[in-house]
Amino acid sequence: MSAGTIEAWVEFASTYSYPAAMRAERAAEAAGLRLVWRPFLLGPIFAAQGWSDSPFNIHPAKGRYMIRDLERVCAQLGLPFKMPARFPAHSLLAARVATVGDGAPWQGAFIRAVFAKGFGEGRDIAERGVIAEALAWAGGPADAVDRATGAEPKAALRNRVEEAVAHGIFGAPSFRVGTELFWGHDRLEAAIDWARQTRSDGVGR
Amino acid sequence: MSAGTIEAWVEFASTYSYPAAMRAERAAEAAGLRLVWRPFLLGPIFAAQGWSDSPFNIHPAKGRYMIRDLERVCAQLGLPFKMPARFPAHSLLAARVATVGDGAPWQGAFIRAVFAKGFGEGRDIAERGVIAEALAWAGGPADAVDRATGAEPKAALRNRVEEAVAHGIFGAPSFRVGTELFWGHDRLEAAIDWARQTRSDGVGR
Repeated sequence: MSAGTIEAWVEFASTYSYPAAMRAERAAEAAGLRLVWRPFLLGPIFAAQGWSDSPFNIHPAKGRYMIRDLERVCAQLGLPFKMPARFPAHSLLAARVATVGDGAPWQGAFIRAVFAKGFGEGRDIAERGVIAEALAWAGGPADAVDRATGAEPKAALRNRVEEAVAHGIFGAPSFRVGTELFWGHDRLEAAIDWARQTRSDGVGR
Repeated sequence: MSAGTIEAWVEFASTYSYPAAMRAERAAEAAGLRLVWRPFLLGPIFAAQGWSDSPFNIHPAKGRYMIRDLERVCAQLGLPFKMPARFPAHSLLAARVATVGDGAPWQGAFIRAVFAKGFGEGRDIAERGVIAEALAWAGGPADAVDRATGAEPKAALRNRVEEAVAHGIFGAPSFRVGTELFWGHDRLEAAIDWARQTRSDGVGR
């Protein structure tokens, strides 16, 4: 990772990834930094630690709190917020399409569109039609949904999940700056400050 | 709870309760608000959801992250940080003594002293000598350690844990403003803003 770069690890089923994804790129750009998207899956990571469901479902008090907290956070950011009927959503297709977009100019807009549909409108992002809409909104190629089920994006996404584990990532959103890890929407500013600092120190070049 | 009041629910074994406890009272006062301490125990709450240990021990990646994150948070606040050899600490005695201090002028200083010894110096707060030192530092009565094992503070602390559950509290630190709950050191400012807002709206009077 070059100096002045922030990796944004987002999971489409993750509630707090929503406000983070909506504002991360703009916040990084405003600080003169480059943001690199790392769409990934938390499911396999949670499964490896014995969870077969979201911790927000496993622990109802935490789940109730999370929804109220998100309402407040989104209100403050001026973002609509609506929990989808199915939570956690099945985010595999969205993650694969986002992976097809690695390095493409439409990737960021697609990621935001999926989050906006999932948590802004409460729609089911497991539906191909919703993903196709997000792709159209982002100006991405219409065939990306078909390409997403090919061997290459599947392998790329599997590798990315392994990379997440290797980096010590256990939740989403997570931000990486060099070898430093920042977990949570509320750590975006800390990650940006760290990236600014290390860039001006010349560390990590 | 009267308008302009923030309840600070802290657990002496909780790492993120440390920076929160060290700065909460001053931050509330600076905003013209009153802070009320609610020392409590997370152990019974965690046990009820099937955890017999800290989630930071159950999930090693999360535990490693938490230590690094605390190092950064404390460095930014100018607080020393040293993990105690035994984690989580046995916080029962500290919580009982803090409960003896409900409403007393030494309570806040005692709470800060225990956190400073536990996470600033890495000492074992289960030791009576450490608690006695904290009490002396806070200007509290020397017999509070003996009184802490009496029936009254025991019952008061048990009731407080039940109250925490009733309020939907599942972690520490937590802040309450009216019926609004804010979880985490990084939500202290949000709680303060909420208390300011509701006070000027006249809500909760």
